[in-house]
Amino acid sequence: MSVVPVNPPLDRDASFLGAADGGKVTLSGVIPPVCTPLTPDFEVDTGSLTRLVDHLLDGGVDGLFVLGSSSEAAFLPDRHRRTVLDTVLRHVAGQVPVLAGVIDMTAPRVLSHVEAALDAGAGGIVATAPFYTRTHPAEIAVHFRTIAKRAGVPLYAYDLPVSVHTKLDASLLLDLAAEGVLAGLKDSSGDDGGLRRVILGRRNRDLPSFAVLTGSELTVDAALWMGADGVVPGLGNVDPHGYVRLYRAAKRGDWAAARDEQERLFRLFDLVRVGGPRMGGSSSALGAFKAALHLRGIIAYPTTALPQIALDSEEIARVGKYLADAALI
Amino acid sequence: MSVVPVNPPLDRDASFLGAADGGKVTLSGVIPPVCTPLTPDFEVDTGSLTRLVDHLLDGGVDGLFVLGSSSEAAFLPDRHRRTVLDTVLRHVAGQVPVLAGVIDMTAPRVLSHVEAALDAGAGGIVATAPFYTRTHPAEIAVHFRTIAKRAGVPLYAYDLPVSVHTKLDASLLLDLAAEGVLAGLKDSSGDDGGLRRVILGRRNRDLPSFAVLTGSELTVDAALWMGADGVVPGLGNVDPHGYVRLYRAAKRGDWAAARDEQERLFRLFDLVRVGGPRMGGSSSALGAFKAALHLRGIIAYPTTALPQIALDSEEIARVGKYLADAALI
Amino acid sequence: MSVVPVNPPLDRDASFLGAADGGKVTLSGVIPPVCTPLTPDFEVDTGSLTRLVDHLLDGGVDGLFVLGSSSEAAFLPDRHRRTVLDTVLRHVAGQVPVLAGVIDMTAPRVLSHVEAALDAGAGGIVATAPFYTRTHPAEIAVHFRTIAKRAGVPLYAYDLPVSVHTKLDASLLLDLAAEGVLAGLKDSSGDDGGLRRVILGRRNRDLPSFAVLTGSELTVDAALWMGADGVVPGLGNVDPHGYVRLYRAAKRGDWAAARDEQERLFRLFDLVRVGGPRMGGSSSALGAFKAALHLRGIIAYPTTALPQIALDSEEIARVGKYLADAALI
Amino acid sequence: MSVVPVNPPLDRDASFLGAADGGKVTLSGVIPPVCTPLTPDFEVDTGSLTRLVDHLLDGGVDGLFVLGSSSEAAFLPDRHRRTVLDTVLRHVAGQVPVLAGVIDMTAPRVLSHVEAALDAGAGGIVATAPFYTRTHPAEIAVHFRTIAKRAGVPLYAYDLPVSVHTKLDASLLLDLAAEGVLAGLKDSSGDDGGLRRVILGRRNRDLPSFAVLTGSELTVDAALWMGADGVVPGLGNVDPHGYVRLYRAAKRGDWAAARDEQERLFRLFDLVRVGGPRMGGSSSALGAFKAALHLRGIIAYPTTALPQIALDSEEIARVGKYLADAALI
Repeated sequence: MSVVPVNPPLDRDASFLGAADGGKVTLSGVIPPVCTPLTPDFEVDTGSLTRLVDHLLDGGVDGLFVLGSSSEAAFLPDRHRRTVLDTVLRHVAGQVPVLAGVIDMTAPRVLSHVEAALDAGAGGIVATAPFYTRTHPAEIAVHFRTIAKRAGVPLYAYDLPVSVHTKLDASLLLDLAAEGVLAGLKDSSGDDGGLRRVILGRRNRDLPSFAVLTGSELTVDAALWMGADGVVPGLGNVDPHGYVRLYRAAKRGDWAAARDEQERLFRLFDLVRVGGPRMGGSSSALGAFKAALHLRGIIAYPTTALPQIALDSEEIARVGKYLADAALI
Repeated sequence: MSVVPVNPPLDRDASFLGAADGGKVTLSGVIPPVCTPLTPDFEVDTGSLTRLVDHLLDGGVDGLFVLGSSSEAAFLPDRHRRTVLDTVLRHVAGQVPVLAGVIDMTAPRVLSHVEAALDAGAGGIVATAPFYTRTHPAEIAVHFRTIAKRAGVPLYAYDLPVSVHTKLDASLLLDLAAEGVLAGLKDSSGDDGGLRRVILGRRNRDLPSFAVLTGSELTVDAALWMGADGVVPGLGNVDPHGYVRLYRAAKRGDWAAARDEQERLFRLFDLVRVGGPRMGGSSSALGAFKAALHLRGIIAYPTTALPQIALDSEEIARVGKYLADAALI
Repeated sequence: MSVVPVNPPLDRDASFLGAADGGKVTLSGVIPPVCTPLTPDFEVDTGSLTRLVDHLLDGGVDGLFVLGSSSEAAFLPDRHRRTVLDTVLRHVAGQVPVLAGVIDMTAPRVLSHVEAALDAGAGGIVATAPFYTRTHPAEIAVHFRTIAKRAGVPLYAYDLPVSVHTKLDASLLLDLAAEGVLAGLKDSSGDDGGLRRVILGRRNRDLPSFAVLTGSELTVDAALWMGADGVVPGLGNVDPHGYVRLYRAAKRGDWAAARDEQERLFRLFDLVRVGGPRMGGSSSALGAFKAALHLRGIIAYPTTALPQIALDSEEIARVGKYLADAALI
Repeated sequence: MSVVPVNPPLDRDASFLGAADGGKVTLSGVIPPVCTPLTPDFEVDTGSLTRLVDHLLDGGVDGLFVLGSSSEAAFLPDRHRRTVLDTVLRHVAGQVPVLAGVIDMTAPRVLSHVEAALDAGAGGIVATAPFYTRTHPAEIAVHFRTIAKRAGVPLYAYDLPVSVHTKLDASLLLDLAAEGVLAGLKDSSGDDGGLRRVILGRRNRDLPSFAVLTGSELTVDAALWMGADGVVPGLGNVDPHGYVRLYRAAKRGDWAAARDEQERLFRLFDLVRVGGPRMGGSSSALGAFKAALHLRGIIAYPTTALPQIALDSEEIARVGKYLADAALI
């Protein structure tokens, strides 16, 4: 497991994570994107949220990522986002670093979320390329520069073409790393060749503190083998212990154990499909994660945010079957 | 020209626009998406904004659409959006209806913008399908229903696949119209066959008050010919008089004059390409609209929001050439 | 109706169609893409094919387009393509021009089909941009130049992004027209703004003999209004008389009659959806056209080529309902 | 290295490769897609082609794949395809298995290429999903079944969404494997999570003879680690010895050596970008492979097929620099 310094929530300039701070350690390990439990009337269920954080910390995770896609950030109004930030940062109290997603269309809107994240004490922020607007590499560079200039904490680029409809180019990312704009990458593109281009590129260009995290939760052993520093697995909400075992096995060089664990998690991951064609992939996957957390007794309700479609009882029962097969209930 | 009642900004339940109100008139005519002038330090230039509104009213427009894509809504933080709403609604003071864009990823976030729009007195709101999240027709329906239930003013669906990466289906739109959820459509998909499907569908299903507005500013004569009620032309910022002439010619049945005007506007529209391949389409088009408004003496600065790339002086000069050719300067 | 010279099938250099021939007339009018009737064992049913040609000629069409997408060219092996060419060219015997699709991935493969089309006596050929390979505007230009150089008959560009995954740019098309490479365009992109850009561009650049045909069969009145020369309607197989009435009404300036006819054809067009979600759009649309032709007694079997899914009897019955509503059976 | 039986070119029913034959071995190892050398007048350069085959066999490859995308199959008319098949099959004379691509739009056209491949003695065929036509999973299944029924040799599915614009689903592939339709998969989708789904799925469903080959030439060590059987690397034309070292290291469990070799090949792979933005990715990559083979003295000309853009002398010199850095010249 990586050695991670505690999170000093009151000092925004600490920059203890990532490239900006030269000699300091790079973010690494298992950093799950924390689901956002909701009450049946669609308010943030803070009690369930702190239980979920405890569940993840108990699993041995190396950090937390709040307000990412798996956190339903796209569905949370600003006041919900603030509740999540405050609840998690206060509860974690520096035990592990907490990164905050600042998902919005362009830099000027992203900066409002940065403000809130810094107020709450987040140790790093995670931003995508511009979306909704048609964009261009020159604009993506200005976007990240604009955010970084104002943030004062490490900025991680979030590559998620399925949502953003742009693929971040390895050269652009490394140029921005060399400039001191980016502290790292969360690569959820599913393109492991592209991931490797970044990993080899940072080696060639001597940018060792640029953190490379994969969001591809089904090829984590391979990503670590290639040289990635860590993983941000949505499924890590359901089974953090599994991802921590995977990561630790890889770190100690027991790749066969890492692969076995990954293959076990791969089978479990199929629960994301329980919703089938009557709903979108987000409704099904996030619904299944929350149903699993509910069935495991960690969160009070399986509610997902509107306009997602709720899983029905039969679909939730099938989630239970996956958990039983994985000996998680 | 359509007869449009005045906008009663203090009474949210008036619903004088669109389907919800049965016997009342349907939104129609020329309703430009109002550009958002900025100062060189990227604040809303309210003085320029009111001059722009006067310019549009002087052109004879039938309504205004603030906080749409051409308004750079994707680039405006909430406080800027509120300034725009307050400035325009106060200045218009009910002379014409004002629609407000409530562009955000999903219903729960959209509703925050609806609140702000209603506070300012907007007479209708305009929302896209969910974006960023992977979506599904069943989720799109819940999304619009959730918004409409809370809005209390007419809700217009905004079909913009280039930004949202989903095409709104004609049947879904008409089902939601029949339910009383949608008051109309702003179709910026560029798919005139799909537009006609909606127009003929509302006739077949006897939904006459469902307003159909085209955002395809280069085929307005054709859209009106097919039965569309009006147009939301970005280029209408630069030349509102032209679009009003086009619309009025069509309404009085002088289609040849409408076509001549449209062809003239088509030639003018080419100014959107001045930025070329060194920037994205948004930087170039919105930069050109603002440069034109600046050159025409209507707004103080041609500034566009970050991270868009600014036009350089040579590119701005070419915008001026287009204006000169169109006798607009 | 346009004046169209007869097709001299034995003289390949005649070039009586399109730009190449300076003073000669431009292709115009209704030029349906001819369906390819098949026997139950998937051979070309030449008897049905000639009956279909007679049905189209009886409808008053101005030309024929064989081996296009609606002809299932993507499903026909070369020997079937040759049978179609020979059957149709021999049967038409110069009564109207016959264009031949030469659909294949790139110029070197396209040229084999050109050879076959010329052998059969086609009066013009129709080619898409390269597909399957990732392409680039510079490559698209070389592609069309390579084909034109060898063809010796007018070459029409076929813009079909849904199949080819590239949109042909208006400037590129007009540059190639000015070079003498392209004689015209069949625009099936559904982008009527783009269509108008070509129409106005040919006027500005004084390329009057460059033929602009729309494949958007639901907005034909609008396309003709904008200045298109003709239409290539898949639905014209089922109801050629309707498209001919539409075109003739437009030519004599009776636009209201043209619109009425288009709206009637629009309602009929919905038969393409009878297959629903259990099959692809091609299976459903081409299956419905053939079912309609079968029900109208024109072709012997409704068979579509493999691997398309066949309509079942209930779906075919619904096609019959559309025909009955349109008084076509 | 895998044990591979010799190729019996005269007996089409031998089915010695893949699932169809029960107890026989599965295709595995390094199976490069063989480039197609051309003369300056765009004919197949058979002398260079046999030298290239010798170069690959000298490298120790386990099989050859002719007429794939890297072979410029999309650019080769049928007579060129036949020349390639005849030249390679005759020259290889059973030393290693030879798979033949049968790239075309749909099953009926594909079957013509199957015929030619079988006549030449190919030991297996490789087909994509339908393209050009809009397709559907039910149609993809019929497509592969139709081909397999006629082929009589193992059929491999070729997953190449960048060309075909459809991603093959793991469940569909495994269903077709269980039916005996598919003998294996060449996965060039770049989606290593999807690749692993197939690998684990064949284990769960007990389909051990279903061959899984990756076309992602930059993550071969990872793919083999996950359980893939082999690789089809375009870059293997330039450096077959490297890919064979990589594969053999992995087979003997020396993963660190495999990774070192993969990282070296990754750096070499950057030569595919020498063409830059003035041409498409295919022109640049295939041009670079051929320039490298020319500079290494293996093929006589670096010519690529039209309408690809040729590399200029400066770009070819940069290819040489990559080769020098890799000690390949």
